[in-house]
Parts: sequence; C-alpha cells; structure tokens
Amino acid sequence: MKLQTPKGFRDFLPQEALKRKIAIDKITQVFERFGFDPLETPTLEYSETLKGKYGEEEKLIYQFKTKGGDEVALKYDQTVPLARVIAQYGPFGAQKILIPFKRYQIQSAFRGENTQKGRYREFLQCDADIIGVSNPLCDAEILALAYEVYQSLGLEVIIKVNDRVLLEAFHLKHLSVIDKLNKIGEPAVIDELSSKGMTGAEAASALKIIKGLLPSPNLKQAIMLFEKMGYPKEVLQFDPTLVRGLDYYTGLILEVVLKSEPNSSSLCGGGRYDKMIGKFIGGKEITAVGFAIGLDRTIEAMDQQGINNNQKTSAKILVAYSSPQLSDRALKITSMLRKAGVNTEIWLENQSKLEKQLKFADQRGIPFIVILGIDNLEGEIVLKDLNKRQQQVLSVEKLIQRFKTE
Amino acid sequence: MKLQTPKGFRDFLPQEALKRKIAIDKITQVFERFGFDPLETPTLEYSETLKGKYGEEEKLIYQFKTKGGDEVALKYDQTVPLARVIAQYGPFGAQKILIPFKRYQIQSAFRGENTQKGRYREFLQCDADIIGVSNPLCDAEILALAYEVYQSLGLEVIIKVNDRVLLEAFHLKHLSVIDKLNKIGEPAVIDELSSKGMTGAEAASALKIIKGLLPSPNLKQAIMLFEKMGYPKEVLQFDPTLVRGLDYYTGLILEVVLKSEPNSSSLCGGGRYDKMIGKFIGGKEITAVGFAIGLDRTIEAMDQQGINNNQKTSAKILVAYSSPQLSDRALKITSMLRKAGVNTEIWLENQSKLEKQLKFADQRGIPFIVILGIDNLEGEIVLKDLNKRQQQVLSVEKLIQRFKTE
Repeated sequence: MKLQTPKGFRDFLPQEALKRKIAIDKITQVFERFGFDPLETPTLEYSETLKGKYGEEEKLIYQFKTKGGDEVALKYDQTVPLARVIAQYGPFGAQKILIPFKRYQIQSAFRGENTQKGRYREFLQCDADIIGVSNPLCDAEILALAYEVYQSLGLEVIIKVNDRVLLEAFHLKHLSVIDKLNKIGEPAVIDELSSKGMTGAEAASALKIIKGLLPSPNLKQAIMLFEKMGYPKEVLQFDPTLVRGLDYYTGLILEVVLKSEPNSSSLCGGGRYDKMIGKFIGGKEITAVGFAIGLDRTIEAMDQQGINNNQKTSAKILVAYSSPQLSDRALKITSMLRKAGVNTEIWLENQSKLEKQLKFADQRGIPFIVILGIDNLEGEIVLKDLNKRQQQVLSVEKLIQRFKTE
Repeated sequence: MKLQTPKGFRDFLPQEALKRKIAIDKITQVFERFGFDPLETPTLEYSETLKGKYGEEEKLIYQFKTKGGDEVALKYDQTVPLARVIAQYGPFGAQKILIPFKRYQIQSAFRGENTQKGRYREFLQCDADIIGVSNPLCDAEILALAYEVYQSLGLEVIIKVNDRVLLEAFHLKHLSVIDKLNKIGEPAVIDELSSKGMTGAEAASALKIIKGLLPSPNLKQAIMLFEKMGYPKEVLQFDPTLVRGLDYYTGLILEVVLKSEPNSSSLCGGGRYDKMIGKFIGGKEITAVGFAIGLDRTIEAMDQQGINNNQKTSAKILVAYSSPQLSDRALKITSMLRKAGVNTEIWLENQSKLEKQLKFADQRGIPFIVILGIDNLEGEIVLKDLNKRQQQVLSVEKLIQRFKTE
C-alpha cells in the first residue's frame, strides 16, 4: 500500500496547520471588520456550472460521473460558485441575498496542474467580493481590505493596479504576453509578440503605447478614495502593463506583491468582473469586484521574512508527575488549568519517569512544564520554563493566576 | 443551466455559515485547551488507501480516475486518513510525529448516501483522537473532552459508554441489530435477530445476557478517572447494548446524546480502535481512541433548543449619510471604527436616501446605524440602536469608546 497523498496533494502536520490557522484567523478578522460575511459552497458542483467560464484553463478541472449518474466537478475557484449562488439566491432568484452583498469565502480549490512546476492540486483560497454595486467606492474598499489583510499579517506590500478598460483595444492573446513584462523583460516580450503575428516594430510601438497610458477616471477616483480612508498613497502603484490572465475582468485589476520583491509572483489578485454573474441569469447585469488571496504564497512570504512564530503545538503546559500516587493530583491541577482557559496537556502514559516527560515536552515544543514531586503531595509545585531554562516553586493558585492573565 | 448544487450538497449562506463558524470556534478552543493540535489531510486520497476499511459502507465512497491516471477517492471520514498519516510520519515512518499524538481535524467527509433519508453527501466532521497510548486515562480524556465540548456549546448531554470487549462473544451481524434496541424496542430486535438465524428463545436469552453485563475493568477505571477530573458521574451512562456500526472498535465505545432525548440519534460518537493503524504498517500495533462530532446534528440540536443566536451578519454598525458631501467624513469615521476593531459597514451606493440605508441595515440585520446629517458636518453624530429602537447624539470619540470596549 502506498503511504502517501495523491501527487500534488498535501498533509498539514500540526506545526504547519497551526501556522495556517493563525494566518486564516487574522484574515477572517479583517474581512469581518470590513463588514464581509462568510459563505460556503460545496466541494463539488455540477460540471455544467463550471463549463465555459475559464477559457483554456478548463482542461485543468477535475470532473467525474457519480454512481448516480451526476456529472460533477471539483470546484476550480470560489468565483464561479459565488456567481451561481448570486444567480440562485439573489435579486433575480430566491431573493435570500440582499444587494449589495459582501461575502468572504475560505475554501479549497482544485486544479489538475503540472506538479513539476511546484504547483499544488488542492490549495486554499481566501476570497472577498462585493456584489451589486459598481461605484468606485467599492473598488477602494477592496483595495483597503487587501492592504489591511497584509498589514495584519505583518507583510509590507504594494498593490499594483490597472483598469482593464484601458486595455480593451488590445487582443487578449497579446495582453497575456504583456503581463509578463516585469518577469521576463522588454526584449523577450517583443520577441514573443512577434511570434504571435505582430512585426517587431508593431510590438515595440504597442508596448510603448501601453506603458504611456494614464489611469482611467474610475481608477483615479478609487485611488483618491483609498487615500481619503487614511492609507498612504505609495501603497497603490499604477501599472499600465498589469493584465491578469482571466478574461472576465471588466475594470479595476489588482495584484498584491511584496514591497521588497515587487517583481516576484503576487500574493493576491483580483479585480472587477461586471459581466460574469450575468452569464448565469440570461445576461442581466450584476456587477462584482473582489480578490483571492493565495494562502500558500502568503505563508511562504511570511516564512521568508521570519514572521511566523513556528510554534509546534498550541499546548502551553505539560503536567508531569514522578509517581503513580501523584496522578490524582495531576488530574486535578490539569482540570483547574483547563477550566482557567490554559491549553494544558497531562502525561498520559503509565510509566512515569520524569526524565521521559521532560524530553517529551521539549520535543513536542510545549513551553512550560509543571512538576509534581513526591515531597509535595498537597503543597507547592515546580514550574519549569523550557525556553528560558528557569524554574520556580509556587502554589497552584499562583500558577493558575499567572497563566490565566497571559 | 441548472442553478443548484449537486444533490445532497449544500450552500451555507451567511446566517448559516456564521452559526457554524461560531460553533466550530468553540469546539476548536476546547480541543486546544485539552492539548490537541490541528491536522489537515487532503480532500482526495488514493482509492487504495480507503479500500477495505469500511466494510459494506465502502460502496458509498466517491471514486474516480484522474486524467493523469491516478485512482483517487474523496475522503469518507477523517479516521482512515489519520491512520495513513500515523503510518507515514509516525514511529514506523518518517518520525515527524511524536507519540503520544493528540490531534484534532475539522474537515469535510463525502458519502454517496441516499438523499431521500435527509442525509448529506458532504458534511463536516470535527474529530479528536489520541494515538499511541492504551492507558484508560486516554479514554477518560476523550470522555472529558466530549463533555466539555458540549458544555461550551450550551447543550446538556449524557455520554453512553460501553466496552467492545464485552461484546466479543457475539457476531457483528447480531450486534448491529442489538444496537437498535433503544430506537426500535425489544420485540422488534428479537424479531430481527430471529430473521438472522437465531431462534426466538436464543435471541431473547442473548439480549438478556447483554443487558445484564457489567462494565469491564478498563471501562470502570476510565469512569473513575473521569470523576476524579471533577465531572459529575451521572454524565456517563453505561449501556451494555451500545454497539456502534463500524467493526474496527476494540475497547471503549461512546455516543453523546441529548440529556432530554437520550434515545434520539447521537451528536457525536467514537471509541478505541487499537488495530486499525496497524493495517497500514504490516500489523505493528499503534493504539488509538477518539471521536467524531457530527456538526450538522449538533447545530440542529442547538437550533431546537434556541441556543444559536441567529445573527444575520457579523457587521455591527452601518455608517450612513444623507448627502454626497458627507461621504468623506463617513469614510473617515468608518476607518476609525475599523481601526478600533469594530466590524463596520459603510453605505456603498451613490444614491444616498437615508430611508433606503435604514431599510438596508434592518434587512441585513446590522444592529446599529451611525447617521451623518447635513447639519453636523464636523460635530456629533446620531447613533441608532435598531433592536432597542433608541437613538442618541454623541461625539465620534464617545462612539468609538463605546464600541471598542464591547
């Protein structure tokens, strides 16, 4: 039997899972502070729902037929399921969703990517979108939200912005090449454009035109509103060569990058897509703007910058004891600590060599150990700080007081 | 295009998603307070990993072949993936996991159930298990954990317990009938046993023997330790007819039920399964005990008892304004509230009729509304409490102070 996950799929052992949980909790808190509410959609959708939404990328969708004969697919992103939800429950549907609708969604997406490029086939997306209002204030809210999320995670970022309207005159096949400008440089872009049917001179001139574009009135207003919210204007960087792959964008597009590595791959991307939801409801327009945070890339950036605390466990104290006759007292102290809200572990094995218990706490990464010795059946206990390598003798009451307030 | 989820799959709109999030946060907090750490495994496993683990239920597994030719399956529970993880990273594997290992896992499971019985095909499980120690103290920890989880959710429960060792003498096909005793009653059980090859007299006598069984020494000790932790003994109810479906249990078995409806379906179930992980590592024994909380059934019980607060949104305040010239100030106040940690929504549409904004806050369920009027461009604002139908005039500083401390 193969002891492994399918290729491109991952386990998250406690240290990694804790790190992710801490980041997700922070992201969620900021989303809710901006008035976004949670939405969850199922892992599987009817294949039909996803069909025709992703252009060439559609071939990466995982699809299968169930025993009951349903043609289903694993969700490819959170955006198309959101569009289905808006069509189904929104103003043209069951009217259970009020417009404007601000929702966040933190769930897995699945793509049959080439794993040789280090891509994952299941990955978590943290999405936030505003549905139903096209006002630039919404664009500004989305920009502010993205900025605050990364502030809360401790990452210094800039947000590249552009307006797709500016690029409407260009073919998408050319745009996707121009999008690579920051990564591959101008000569390579001109080469690639030439290979797609432009002459070298045309390519150079197209590039020059694009690089000389000025922000659209809508974009200018969103930027101004962002500043009025009290954010520094340097955070937003107008980049007329920013394109983004998907063809459903209709206005603002944005990418969050590290301030220290503005040309490396983005942590978060999104934009305005005013026509997409309409595909589900016979072309009636419901506007939308939002972004998806790639949690993997974000966590990786936090790792690189040494921001993650890399705790191995959420347990704070191990209650250890040197003899079976102390186990009742150990149980009691454990219960008291837990009741006081302290994450507490008790030594579970029958065998009670103190040395083994200390080694366990150390390997597991539990920062404190409470030791009950045979000479203090009722009285004080020893508290050992494994990081500072200090220890003190104190009463159980003092122990609880100390950790309760931490 | 069908505007719906595949049969048996669900969307959770904000009100439902919030309710679930609040419950999950409480469950997670209790898990961590007991020293359990998070683990995540992928949605897909190799089919091979799940094969031969679930007996008859195996036919409910969703399986398919990827374009790359991998035979994969959607996970059926969290227990088999956990066993794979222990085999892969534990003491007989990569040694990245330390024994004893206490992990929790809150993820979806997938089963091609008959939806006519009101069953879901994707549902969330909240699992907690202790791996590697067979000591009855672990069983007591698991019982205490289950009890504390339901205490934190506000549900009065009892935990039915039994020891599978007591039932070893009986065939599993008979046991699964006896498990129904509380639901269908004694005559129906005797009938069904008769249809499975026992005579009526044999069935009646087997039932009598089982009902007269006494707790095993291990179970007695776990119960005693539970009491020593300070929990009331009435919480645990020895039920010699408790069996549980899956055949991998080897010791303690438990089911959490509502105190007010002890014979209705359980909220949470589990037990000791000392042989299962060994299946992955050539029969070497790694012991395990734990449970899975069914979130749907638990939320449903909380709904029935009126415990859930049914808030429609996490937003606390809507900042409204009666004229476009107030929008700058509205933006500023919104930013100040958010910086103070208050979940704040700002009116996003261009059109600024106050009436419409009040109606929106009311329909969306936002409890407070801050109103900027044309006569107070700089000064005080109006705060309206939509639940109490009260309003007051106050300074922005007082406003922030009030909500910051809430």
